[in-house]
Amino acid sequence: MKHLLAVDWGTSSLRGAWMDAAGHVLEQRTFARGILSVAPGEFPAVFKACFGDWMQTPGAVCLMSGMVGSRQGWLEAPYCACPAGFEALAARLAWVVPGRVGVVPGLAYENEGIPDVMRGEETQVFGALQLLGLQDAVLVLPGTHSKWVRLQTGRIQSFSTFMTGEFYALLRQHSILARSMPTTDNEAGDDDHAFQQGVALALRSTSLLHTAFSTRTLSLFKRLPANALPSYLSGLVIGEELRAQTLEANTRVVIIGTEALTRRYQSALALRAVTAQRIGAQATWAGLWAIAQTLGSNLLKPA
Amino acid sequence: MKHLLAVDWGTSSLRGAWMDAAGHVLEQRTFARGILSVAPGEFPAVFKACFGDWMQTPGAVCLMSGMVGSRQGWLEAPYCACPAGFEALAARLAWVVPGRVGVVPGLAYENEGIPDVMRGEETQVFGALQLLGLQDAVLVLPGTHSKWVRLQTGRIQSFSTFMTGEFYALLRQHSILARSMPTTDNEAGDDDHAFQQGVALALRSTSLLHTAFSTRTLSLFKRLPANALPSYLSGLVIGEELRAQTLEANTRVVIIGTEALTRRYQSALALRAVTAQRIGAQATWAGLWAIAQTLGSNLLKPA
Repeated sequence: MKHLLAVDWGTSSLRGAWMDAAGHVLEQRTFARGILSVAPGEFPAVFKACFGDWMQTPGAVCLMSGMVGSRQGWLEAPYCACPAGFEALAARLAWVVPGRVGVVPGLAYENEGIPDVMRGEETQVFGALQLLGLQDAVLVLPGTHSKWVRLQTGRIQSFSTFMTGEFYALLRQHSILARSMPTTDNEAGDDDHAFQQGVALALRSTSLLHTAFSTRTLSLFKRLPANALPSYLSGLVIGEELRAQTLEANTRVVIIGTEALTRRYQSALALRAVTAQRIGAQATWAGLWAIAQTLGSNLLKPA
Repeated sequence: MKHLLAVDWGTSSLRGAWMDAAGHVLEQRTFARGILSVAPGEFPAVFKACFGDWMQTPGAVCLMSGMVGSRQGWLEAPYCACPAGFEALAARLAWVVPGRVGVVPGLAYENEGIPDVMRGEETQVFGALQLLGLQDAVLVLPGTHSKWVRLQTGRIQSFSTFMTGEFYALLRQHSILARSMPTTDNEAGDDDHAFQQGVALALRSTSLLHTAFSTRTLSLFKRLPANALPSYLSGLVIGEELRAQTLEANTRVVIIGTEALTRRYQSALALRAVTAQRIGAQATWAGLWAIAQTLGSNLLKPA
């Protein structure tokens, strides 16, 4: 393998990184071509239009992670069961073009009869493992459906999903609470103090079903201005997610995601007296590169 | 007072009961004229159109409870603070027509700097107190915004709101979970077993943010059919509400509301080993009648 094309193909966006054999990112591209925008059968054409030039390079290999491997994606890559290390993912790649274009499987984890799933986050976790030299950690990947992942001796032992971002959006846009708020978060702006207030209340309460109503009453009694309410509500949902975690003292917590969101989680975790480190989207590229390194030498030889 | 017109004027509906001096309901009327459908200034006309004939009766008194006493209602009746007995409500009636047409105030309760409010439920609680001869109990009024009320020595000591019905509707209609479900609950039908499964999972978990996602994964892995998902989700949100309650052994729990909803709560509470009794909407009429009894004899004399 002289070059790796690392692709993160999710529900709403398509990102690619062109990497050299040493794992350096040479160039990146982003397209608004998430799998929801791609009709069945159209995947090869979209792929070629976006990355065809890179794939002309002799010996280039492409690995993709994310919803592209789901039933609605290009090629279904059945879930791997936990515990799983990245060698397990490498061994279970689904090949669109054998040895050339592969899809990383997602992970499934079952707890007391209830299954949980992820697609894409497993690759970010193994990337963080590479970048930070981790073997044991708790990792959180905040988002529409946040994932909390337990890594032990380099393998994902278990994980669980929290619909935090989606609950925020539902409450922000469609609930009675929306009536007290500015129409957009841009109008409202960030209010760190209100955010921390929300986190603190959630951490000492028992359910978002109850704390969410305080958004209404604090507004009704004019204790919080309308512009502070979105940040307060964000604190309530993120605080609820953190309240629900069992975190032993001295647990190493790693937050993977965008700058803005990982900072919010870091400041919320500080209210639980947990120190966390942040890592950005490069984790995906590092994860795909690490998986590529495990492929047989016949795929990895220089062109 | 020869007759009492008891009115429950809420956000989306208007109900009235015509009662004799002994507290018997002689006739009831229901209109789709909740306060959201009434323009400011239109309240007297709507009232007259709905109940004018009854109010012609000499000596008739009308008491109203619910959102009619809010800022968006006919006449704002400022909140009473807890603890409060029904004499306190009677003493703080807001009179549209002095001695003739009055509005029962709502209640406010503040816990660690976070206010909570109710309008209408306080009247139902005092009605249940009359009907069941209660002095000490925990009462739950399920709904869009469920209320949990602690009654001690005949007074409401504290209460808290859970946005259970609203969360269900948001998840049912607007979330990713909706995609796996039939469009309407009528199509789906009730599935008691799935409901109980949802309650049981919620009771042993820590947050709806996590358990809600199981609606998706159980569907993904074909462990629950699409028709069972709405009942399962209903179990998750009601179970979450129950998980968050502190209920000492031997607490007397009273559920006030419609037949269908109180039965669901009763069966969910049974999974927490709590025995509960149910009471219907007549609690509102009994509550308004009890408040009317405390009015001065100049109002209460026979016509």
